[in-house]
Amino acid sequence: MGRDLTALFDPRSVAVVGASDDPAKYGHAVASQALRAPDRRPVHLVNRRGGTVLGRTAATSLAAIGEPVELVVISVPSTGFEAAVDDALACGAKAIVGITAGFAESGPAGLARQRAIAARVRAAGAVLVGPNCLGVADNTTELYLASDRFAPGRIALLSQSGNLALELQLRGAPHGLGFSRFVSLGNQADVTLVDLIEDCARHEATSAIAVYAEDFGDGRAFAASAAAAGKPVVLLTAGRGTASARSAHSHTGALTTSADVVAAACRDAGVELVRTPREMTVLLAALSTAPRAHGPRADDRRTGDRHAGDRHAGDRHADGARTGDRHAGDRRADGPRTGDPRTGSPGTAGRRTAVFTDGGGHGAVAADAAEDAGLDVPELGATTQDRLRAVLWEQSSVGNPVDLAGMGEQRPLSYADAVGGLLAADEVDAVLMTGYFGGYAASEGGLGGGPAGGSVLAEGETRAAKEIVAHLATAPKPLVVQSMYPQSPSCRVLAEAGVPVFAATEDAARALAAMAGRPDPGSGGVPPLPPAAAPLRDPGYHGVRALLGAAGVPFPAAREVADEGGLLAAAAEFDGPYVLKALHVLHKSDAGGVALRLADREALLAAYRDMDGRLGAPSYSVEAMADLADGVELIVGVNRDPRFGPVAMVGLGGVLTETLRDVAFALAPVPARRAEALLRGLRGAALLDGVRGRPAVDVAAAAAVVERITTVAAAHPEIAEFEVNPLLVRPDGALALDARAVLG
Amino acid sequence: MGRDLTALFDPRSVAVVGASDDPAKYGHAVASQALRAPDRRPVHLVNRRGGTVLGRTAATSLAAIGEPVELVVISVPSTGFEAAVDDALACGAKAIVGITAGFAESGPAGLARQRAIAARVRAAGAVLVGPNCLGVADNTTELYLASDRFAPGRIALLSQSGNLALELQLRGAPHGLGFSRFVSLGNQADVTLVDLIEDCARHEATSAIAVYAEDFGDGRAFAASAAAAGKPVVLLTAGRGTASARSAHSHTGALTTSADVVAAACRDAGVELVRTPREMTVLLAALSTAPRAHGPRADDRRTGDRHAGDRHAGDRHADGARTGDRHAGDRRADGPRTGDPRTGSPGTAGRRTAVFTDGGGHGAVAADAAEDAGLDVPELGATTQDRLRAVLWEQSSVGNPVDLAGMGEQRPLSYADAVGGLLAADEVDAVLMTGYFGGYAASEGGLGGGPAGGSVLAEGETRAAKEIVAHLATAPKPLVVQSMYPQSPSCRVLAEAGVPVFAATEDAARALAAMAGRPDPGSGGVPPLPPAAAPLRDPGYHGVRALLGAAGVPFPAAREVADEGGLLAAAAEFDGPYVLKALHVLHKSDAGGVALRLADREALLAAYRDMDGRLGAPSYSVEAMADLADGVELIVGVNRDPRFGPVAMVGLGGVLTETLRDVAFALAPVPARRAEALLRGLRGAALLDGVRGRPAVDVAAAAAVVERITTVAAAHPEIAEFEVNPLLVRPDGALALDARAVLG
Repeated sequence: MGRDLTALFDPRSVAVVGASDDPAKYGHAVASQALRAPDRRPVHLVNRRGGTVLGRTAATSLAAIGEPVELVVISVPSTGFEAAVDDALACGAKAIVGITAGFAESGPAGLARQRAIAARVRAAGAVLVGPNCLGVADNTTELYLASDRFAPGRIALLSQSGNLALELQLRGAPHGLGFSRFVSLGNQADVTLVDLIEDCARHEATSAIAVYAEDFGDGRAFAASAAAAGKPVVLLTAGRGTASARSAHSHTGALTTSADVVAAACRDAGVELVRTPREMTVLLAALSTAPRAHGPRADDRRTGDRHAGDRHAGDRHADGARTGDRHAGDRRADGPRTGDPRTGSPGTAGRRTAVFTDGGGHGAVAADAAEDAGLDVPELGATTQDRLRAVLWEQSSVGNPVDLAGMGEQRPLSYADAVGGLLAADEVDAVLMTGYFGGYAASEGGLGGGPAGGSVLAEGETRAAKEIVAHLATAPKPLVVQSMYPQSPSCRVLAEAGVPVFAATEDAARALAAMAGRPDPGSGGVPPLPPAAAPLRDPGYHGVRALLGAAGVPFPAAREVADEGGLLAAAAEFDGPYVLKALHVLHKSDAGGVALRLADREALLAAYRDMDGRLGAPSYSVEAMADLADGVELIVGVNRDPRFGPVAMVGLGGVLTETLRDVAFALAPVPARRAEALLRGLRGAALLDGVRGRPAVDVAAAAAVVERITTVAAAHPEIAEFEVNPLLVRPDGALALDARAVLG
Repeated sequence: MGRDLTALFDPRSVAVVGASDDPAKYGHAVASQALRAPDRRPVHLVNRRGGTVLGRTAATSLAAIGEPVELVVISVPSTGFEAAVDDALACGAKAIVGITAGFAESGPAGLARQRAIAARVRAAGAVLVGPNCLGVADNTTELYLASDRFAPGRIALLSQSGNLALELQLRGAPHGLGFSRFVSLGNQADVTLVDLIEDCARHEATSAIAVYAEDFGDGRAFAASAAAAGKPVVLLTAGRGTASARSAHSHTGALTTSADVVAAACRDAGVELVRTPREMTVLLAALSTAPRAHGPRADDRRTGDRHAGDRHAGDRHADGARTGDRHAGDRRADGPRTGDPRTGSPGTAGRRTAVFTDGGGHGAVAADAAEDAGLDVPELGATTQDRLRAVLWEQSSVGNPVDLAGMGEQRPLSYADAVGGLLAADEVDAVLMTGYFGGYAASEGGLGGGPAGGSVLAEGETRAAKEIVAHLATAPKPLVVQSMYPQSPSCRVLAEAGVPVFAATEDAARALAAMAGRPDPGSGGVPPLPPAAAPLRDPGYHGVRALLGAAGVPFPAAREVADEGGLLAAAAEFDGPYVLKALHVLHKSDAGGVALRLADREALLAAYRDMDGRLGAPSYSVEAMADLADGVELIVGVNRDPRFGPVAMVGLGGVLTETLRDVAFALAPVPARRAEALLRGLRGAALLDGVRGRPAVDVAAAAAVVERITTVAAAHPEIAEFEVNPLLVRPDGALALDARAVLG
């Protein structure tokens, strides 16, 4: 359900405490804004000196108002904040917006103060936004309690930065983007990002939620709320470089960064993760205004080869959940615009994009940009080519990119004919129109001025735009336009019909990729956490083995031994070759604490004596040596992130883990289907299919083990780092060869 | 020296053949433009029907003009083109601009026609641009022979696409960019891209050369001319996905794509490779207008750790010469803003960037963007922090990003104080100012309108801009600004002083990275080709071994044998263990044609009998088995690109070559120093340093062998694909274990 924020977004009355005539004070800006809708609800200005503020009589205190106030904005010096909160609650306030700074952001004492305040507010049945925030606005209820005006629209903007919110506002304007709500997150002492996402999800006038956040609070809850929002959530965040675990004890811990975790959570939750305000604007233009933006995500419609889909993952930032950007390499390996040769498919269904232009350069550049954005630009089939040829010139190219080759200048309606033909083609999922369109109708005052050609061409182009809109109604597919003249009348016809129009090729490609949805077969939402199990008592190797073994993770036979007698007794229980491991030794491989391929008991005993002499470990493990032939070593780990809880990592194991960082991340527990997608998406995934005549390994078995390992880890919050390394996957199954747990 | 293009860019007289009053004809547009400077030189219009064109009497033929014409533009139907060329040459033309289409772009017959025409032109001592081009313009000589007007400026634009040229013109305008020259490349039948680059390099009024090209012609010459230009060359190209070698016989051939080759050539030549018109504009704004753009490239100033430098390669497109984008992964492994932990350095000299803002969100986003662009954002040292603290507020952050934290609103000059402090710091190579700056001075009519605050703040901000310019004069370092109000008066002060100002964070970061130069220790220009050696007679394995062996590439002992007698004789010459290879068998590893670790002659003989029974190869190679312990297998190959000549590939060998594509490219021959940089830049470079207690291998020895291999390959143009795989590199040296050559 979420918290009731009605008093925050649609209060019956408002008071601004700290309202001022001094333009240098924030209380001046908020009070000025608050008075923009004087008839919607009573707005009281409070200034302890009384007198007038903004030409109105100011109350000297909330109590002096003489009637209850539902929402109170507090913009007073820090020392007076608690008193103001108490006054507000005494006045019956159900919502408080704390502008005042000097709390958690200033240190532990401030944190303690804001915690106490939040507790008092909650105890009174009220809610608190902030403190240290810049206010709240709701254009749908004429509530203006922030210093900036936000153009009305359908985007809810939840931001931890006022200036970034302002930039988003400036950038959105040319795209016709506006805002339903704005909330400055502040310190989130009471009302959190999650509360706000839940409320905006219910808010009918909001069609997309834009978030700038540095502090996710309960990251897992953030991801879950975004996944459940039922409308696009676009996240801008920063600090991707922050390592979460500098002092990690496992590879998983050392390789898992904050950026990986956020990227994985966003991918799992279906959140569009962006890097800059410009990119956020592009996504919002694509997802909040396009006619298809509010329908089901393409994820639900996707068909076709799962692996190809994952390799072409459309969101390059969700892609960041894997280490590094693999598009370039993959595209090269795959070859150009011919789909995925490994599957023989002509592109991944849902991502098959027709690029269309009049003049070859733009088409070629846009085709590359589309592929960079994760779209496919396959050659069109004969039927579609024939259909296009029937309406275009002889010199037009109809392969893909489709190029009018000068026909637009003679007959602007050919733009519509071509787009219509492409939208009608079953093999085309999306259309990217790029280049000159808009130029014929561009006014002299437009971007660089319109060309010669006159009003006949201009009228034809505008008619073409209207016909394109009509075609779109018949064949509703994602269409995005890049135009040198985005503000031209013909482009405005398209934009007003919900077709995103951009000036930059890469923006158009990125937008189209977002509209086409992401072909991520492994993304199935935020996995629920299993109930906590009884804490692990023995975090030693055999304790961890027992825990995982009970969950169905297969291990070779093994016995823990403390002396030669135990060693020989263990060796009698199963045949060699043996493995001997020194236990309770840090980095035992590096320390020479692992001996492999000990053919018989004699070799085992010799190895034991050598190892015990060198290391004097408290105990050892004698194990049956697994058959490594035709196997691939994987690493499977779970790191507990302070914000996002258990986060799984899978990757190539052994020496490759450290040297190549070919690993992928997902929120844990990881269902087998998603685990398989992660494994298939590794750079080195070809190793799993068998190379140089080796047989393919049983990836499904490995994925099933990943599900078991990550489920166990998720049920043990006391384990900070959990790792099976290597997980040997062979043609006939998967076997865990070593495991460790680090308690938090 | 290059060709003399004076008659093309500054002719004494001009004639337009095909001049027309019909606005649908190109001859109308060119004639209209040509008449813009009627007093500069005689402009003759020629129309076979005579009469008047554009209000002037048209000559019915070139001969009818009655005087020599130095430059003739020909825009007539294709069938009349040869006759028009002959007329022009008869008239004394020294330059011809062929607008007429229907030549090489229409097929082999058209290609033959244009070749014959070009030969005629050259025989007459003249030059020909086109055919199938859109004309030429030179703003410095008032020569206007293209349909578009180009704003005057210092960029020479050489483009194969008219519409992209137009978009670059539109995009450049807000940055104050203009053009010295424009040449539509057309079919390059005579005057090529290379000729034009060489001429623009000599052209004093040109400070940067912008190229859009799909057809590089002689790519090697393109790279060499760009490297020698002495001014920035920015290349926009398309079709990155085009595989150059679908039918390749070697790994090198199969893994080398057109995109890899172009990226490698650009990196070697110092060409800035961009993907979109927007990106090109960003680079041109950075490199053509900034005061420091024409000085020595940062390459020449760079110091510090070579490997760290290569890992942080600034140009993400030059980076593309390696497979995939490694910044993200590397940055994570490296940790944030602390430089490179592997070297302990606080960032790579030349790339150490201070990010500066007023309001944390922009700083955090910009710091990420800077790192994405290949810059370092290290924490500032105590001295610099103290210096900043002395001029800033207590609440300002001085670590990096540096954040005024609201001080700008109180005292705009603090922007200048902070930038001055940063520019003065030895540890800061470049400054990225981001966010609100410009907002105080932004007029109401500006981007979203200026905020409250009034003229005092506006004046302060403009003064701050002037002080920043003054600081820059004292400490000339790259400074780029991202502003929400890029057109504000204060931002214009900066822009007019040569400081690039952008609206988008990522643009600012990319521009700054380009200004800071690229830390590519391996890039030493375009290597000259060695003279061609006598062609390889025996492209068989032992022939290739002999060729490489003579060049100093070490191999294990080996003998080619054809029967058991030869086998045993060979085995008597050196000790086991042995390797046996079947020769003249395609994919011999996959076919079971390689047997390793044959301990003695008996094992060798048994392997021979087995292999000969299965494969019946015409001959075999008996070799001494190399010691693989502690070795790393590399692949070294050279593929002969039809445009760029020999292109080298180095990478991880063995099974990793196919699965990970961890390879890098450079124009061949590759000097050892550059080869070492390529190897150190591989994703899996850590393997070379020794992992898990293994010793580091002798990368310098491997690099020396790479130089030898690539030099041999470059001297043998008859070899289409050349490959040593594996090249075993051990702690004590490098050894080629197999080699092959595929003749073209």
